[in-house]
Amino acid sequence: MSKTEKTELQAFLSKEFPQKNFLIESFEKNTVTVRRIVSSADLRPGGTISGPTMMDLADCALYVAVLREIGIVALAVTTSLNINFLRKPVAGKDLLGVCKILKLGRSLAVGEVSIYSEGDDEPVAHSVGTYAIPTDK
Amino acid sequence: MSKTEKTELQAFLSKEFPQKNFLIESFEKNTVTVRRIVSSADLRPGGTISGPTMMDLADCALYVAVLREIGIVALAVTTSLNINFLRKPVAGKDLLGVCKILKLGRSLAVGEVSIYSEGDDEPVAHSVGTYAIPTDK
Amino acid sequence: MSKTEKTELQAFLSKEFPQKNFLIESFEKNTVTVRRIVSSADLRPGGTISGPTMMDLADCALYVAVLREIGIVALAVTTSLNINFLRKPVAGKDLLGVCKILKLGRSLAVGEVSIYSEGDDEPVAHSVGTYAIPTDK
Amino acid sequence: MSKTEKTELQAFLSKEFPQKNFLIESFEKNTVTVRRIVSSADLRPGGTISGPTMMDLADCALYVAVLREIGIVALAVTTSLNINFLRKPVAGKDLLGVCKILKLGRSLAVGEVSIYSEGDDEPVAHSVGTYAIPTDK
Repeated sequence: MSKTEKTELQAFLSKEFPQKNFLIESFEKNTVTVRRIVSSADLRPGGTISGPTMMDLADCALYVAVLREIGIVALAVTTSLNINFLRKPVAGKDLLGVCKILKLGRSLAVGEVSIYSEGDDEPVAHSVGTYAIPTDK
Repeated sequence: MSKTEKTELQAFLSKEFPQKNFLIESFEKNTVTVRRIVSSADLRPGGTISGPTMMDLADCALYVAVLREIGIVALAVTTSLNINFLRKPVAGKDLLGVCKILKLGRSLAVGEVSIYSEGDDEPVAHSVGTYAIPTDK
Repeated sequence: MSKTEKTELQAFLSKEFPQKNFLIESFEKNTVTVRRIVSSADLRPGGTISGPTMMDLADCALYVAVLREIGIVALAVTTSLNINFLRKPVAGKDLLGVCKILKLGRSLAVGEVSIYSEGDDEPVAHSVGTYAIPTDK
Repeated sequence: MSKTEKTELQAFLSKEFPQKNFLIESFEKNTVTVRRIVSSADLRPGGTISGPTMMDLADCALYVAVLREIGIVALAVTTSLNINFLRKPVAGKDLLGVCKILKLGRSLAVGEVSIYSEGDDEPVAHSVGTYAIPTDK
């Protein structure tokens, strides 16, 4: 199980998500940060960023954090996601998802993602998700 | 608390979600069914419908079911969502989200949504979500 | 994969949970109902049944529903549980947990449990849980 | 909103949970740690600590962390709890639940709890819960 390089993962992401609105920001020892570029299509009337945009980021940050550990396995799939919306995101700012893996088992990975409006210290959402890892890889 | 008419709600939905990919299918006594029109932008390489597309539908079906009960209150917001992905959706089919309200309190509503590929009996995902209802309405 | 008999499962339950406060009430085609005998130790001051008592029942009803399908496999373990508390349970009544399996995969089962105070139609809690099934069984 | 003293909270806990198996370990700036004394009644055959024992601790640690912030309000109630079981707890050890509040709103608090076997660095479970705060307090 080798740590996949950031550039390789970014290339994979851009192919998997052709909207190209996810950028891998940083790879720390224990965390992965993914940026979701927010555009007008992600807003609801009134200027709020939609909930699904945050779920989308939570799912992607988890995906990146898991693939970083197990290598690029397109068949890894989300099996569950739980998200709590905490504060109203700032409309004109990108979102940052900071993912920490809680468990990396043979067939299941669990991680948590804190989501921030860029430049803000208090999370706008918090998510926990699980990924099934193909056991025949 | 009057039951909002289906056409009124559909008009509201189309304004709130300008992508216009949600259609209210049916209003039964206890359930609301919302169709998510699936297009190529919702697919991942390999033809799978993305997880966030299903979360998006769960969130919308809950929203419709809650607004049906409390009237059109744009300020109602999702506070949490939990989703389990159960089976691979059929790529060429729309998704149907069937929402049942579990609790309608003064300030909090809880509902569950079963998601199906059109024409299939077994759910592809199951979600439970909570909505905060503005108490000063 | 044979359906385990009710009496066999009840015997297993009474051994696994020596407090002997769970009774299998009914085995329908799609659902399993488990009774949680409520005693004074399960109450909080004021007469409310504690949240953990309901979680306990959700977990047990899921366990019974999964074992009914896969046979008695003591190594099946809960991997996650999500519960929403909907109404205050009736203090002097037992709780009934009605579990429906949403997915029975090779290595993962997902089910939902609606919890009722006996004699009441509206659920006091709703739970969704996942079970890992040992793949070498 | 004054921070409630640790001893006052411990006294309240011991009254609310007459089993007296919860001890407040520490009050840091951002976190609260609660010990669950594990006895033989909490074990399943084979020596595993039961899932509900961990849910019980998650719920209690959240309760303590919320009451610490809002003062002792017996009417604060859990509205939802999500838990992922990550590793097998060590049978002969107490459990420690470390709770961090993610949001403290006017009517809703959200917190996360990491659960450890005493002396072990890797969490055995991770939970996120929400509490409803009586608005007329």
